Amino acid sequence: MAEKLYPYLQLLHFTKTVFEKIGCTASDAELAAKVLLSADLRGIDSHGVARLSGYVRLWEVNRVNAKPNIRIIHESPSTAVIDGDGGLGLVVAPFAMQVAIDKAKTAGTGWVSVQNSNHFGIAGYHAMMALQHDMIGWAMTNASPLVAPTFSVERLLGTNPICVAVPAGQEPAFVADLATTTAANGKLEILQRKNQEAPSGWVQDKMGGPSVNPHELKSGGALLPLGGDREHGSHKGYALGAIVDIFSAVLSGANYGPWVPPFPAYVPMPEEQPGKGIGHFFGAMRIDAFRPADDFKFNMDKWITRFRAAKTIEGQERVLIPGDPEREMEERRIRSGIPLLKVVEDDIEFLAEKFGVAL
Amino acid sequence: MAEKLYPYLQLLHFTKTVFEKIGCTASDAELAAKVLLSADLRGIDSHGVARLSGYVRLWEVNRVNAKPNIRIIHESPSTAVIDGDGGLGLVVAPFAMQVAIDKAKTAGTGWVSVQNSNHFGIAGYHAMMALQHDMIGWAMTNASPLVAPTFSVERLLGTNPICVAVPAGQEPAFVADLATTTAANGKLEILQRKNQEAPSGWVQDKMGGPSVNPHELKSGGALLPLGGDREHGSHKGYALGAIVDIFSAVLSGANYGPWVPPFPAYVPMPEEQPGKGIGHFFGAMRIDAFRPADDFKFNMDKWITRFRAAKTIEGQERVLIPGDPEREMEERRIRSGIPLLKVVEDDIEFLAEKFGVAL
Repeated sequence: MAEKLYPYLQLLHFTKTVFEKIGCTASDAELAAKVLLSADLRGIDSHGVARLSGYVRLWEVNRVNAKPNIRIIHESPSTAVIDGDGGLGLVVAPFAMQVAIDKAKTAGTGWVSVQNSNHFGIAGYHAMMALQHDMIGWAMTNASPLVAPTFSVERLLGTNPICVAVPAGQEPAFVADLATTTAANGKLEILQRKNQEAPSGWVQDKMGGPSVNPHELKSGGALLPLGGDREHGSHKGYALGAIVDIFSAVLSGANYGPWVPPFPAYVPMPEEQPGKGIGHFFGAMRIDAFRPADDFKFNMDKWITRFRAAKTIEGQERVLIPGDPEREMEERRIRSGIPLLKVVEDDIEFLAEKFGVAL
Repeated sequence: MAEKLYPYLQLLHFTKTVFEKIGCTASDAELAAKVLLSADLRGIDSHGVARLSGYVRLWEVNRVNAKPNIRIIHESPSTAVIDGDGGLGLVVAPFAMQVAIDKAKTAGTGWVSVQNSNHFGIAGYHAMMALQHDMIGWAMTNASPLVAPTFSVERLLGTNPICVAVPAGQEPAFVADLATTTAANGKLEILQRKNQEAPSGWVQDKMGGPSVNPHELKSGGALLPLGGDREHGSHKGYALGAIVDIFSAVLSGANYGPWVPPFPAYVPMPEEQPGKGIGHFFGAMRIDAFRPADDFKFNMDKWITRFRAAKTIEGQERVLIPGDPEREMEERRIRSGIPLLKVVEDDIEFLAEKFGVAL
């Protein structure tokens, strides 16, 4: 049976309409839909339209403010802190990234830490905003605690992604977008549906012992930092996740560590809240604040060409440049459409009915 | 037999004198010795006095300029590019980090990319310079190619470390200093001396196959990016190492990828050189460009205290904060002295004789 593919513009229009129904302005709804759908286009299906009902449920329990007053609350020539006013991270994040870009235009670089926000979709969308300005873009966010630090049984960190987007010349941009865990939670969900075991080093059980059970998080287990265990460098993944948490939340005044608000609306909020909402961190670096953009791009093309031409291990087709798989997926899906799992189809049909919106 | 311990000040004075003998000014020699010895104090023995003879050999083949004219060649309010003039990275790096700190004083943050340098010791020394100014410090460097990108048999990246140092209040600073490989090369050298196998995921053989042979690099093998293999996230370690390479060298005009000059003086220079010397990248972020330093430190202490108190896996003593082991080692060694391996003792005795310097 052929897989059903949804045209991008159909899903975009539907998503925009749902965001309007929860009270977003037309322009915010359009932006939020575009950011959310960029995940589906780039093949990061766990962060796209599959999460739309999750955002709606957060709005239903008053954890999302559909009409936020997003504003700068502190700044210097190259920095700012932004209060997202409890808005959708899908809207707060592009606002903050634009402030970073504007700062970079005059100061050479711009760095923005954000408090009082919500989940912002994929980091890649925001970091890539810098590319058209001949800037390097950074985006990071903290997230609900699912990850145990090395040697611990407690979940104290989110999957805390880092994205760095670097412009090139003739070559496509270098876009590294990575969770600081061995594997993202979305990969576990795929294994659950297929009823397959997880590779070693992805999760631990509630006692902190090794596990290959993809359902481990439901019984008190945890995701593992990149590296998996101490012998394979998990203390480095833990440190990277911690850096993301500190830059996104301790620097901005958001919640951090175990106090980050959960994404599922049915999970109660932590009793203690040392800050406001969840936190993000963005950066923009003007290339010609370092060297002429043309020189940089010439050398960036040379870097990319050399790595792409690297001799492969027998049986491997090619050496990838960070961003290659997502870009190729985007080219394919914008042309052919986006496949949705049955469970996601059910989810958006439910939303269509709930809000009386045509799918 | 009790291990012989060398007093810190004895090794510092000796190292300083050797740097003077190769032509460094008294103040450069003192700084270089202090930076180099900070590795021994912090327990990163591979990067300390064990490398002194390596620096001398680079000077002998005219790959190190003992009297460099280190200068800013490009700048904006928050950025600079520095030409290290072929000097010791041990001297170039603190100069560059100071420029980053000075930029941060006025612009909020400072970001400095460096070309035409050499190995700079441990990243931690430079990043930690920011702490006394109530700033977050960053330090990264590229290095001789020993690491294969995911799916490749070629060595195209160095162990490319990232250090981020974050000030706290009552608690000691958070200092994450990590090579972007599963294990640093120094750890392999320890296994070689002990005649022990390496854990899986540290190295691959020359065909790109899995290996536990700690001597693999001598027969065409490679170190592996953090993660080890694709299933365990090596594409993330590869991306992180690539980011360090791009920020340190493509942004500054240094050599990158396979063209980074080798540390051993007997290894010929790459025939092609797209840039100058090796590259570093530094950053300084003034805390109060984001929020009042006292607020930040209060929350940073809370972050550290919570993670330190995390429930441990049975059999594990405690959950560590990045920087704990190195700080504790430093406290011990500054008091009791620094142990040196026989091969390192031989090495510095050779230098003592060569230059007529008392050890």
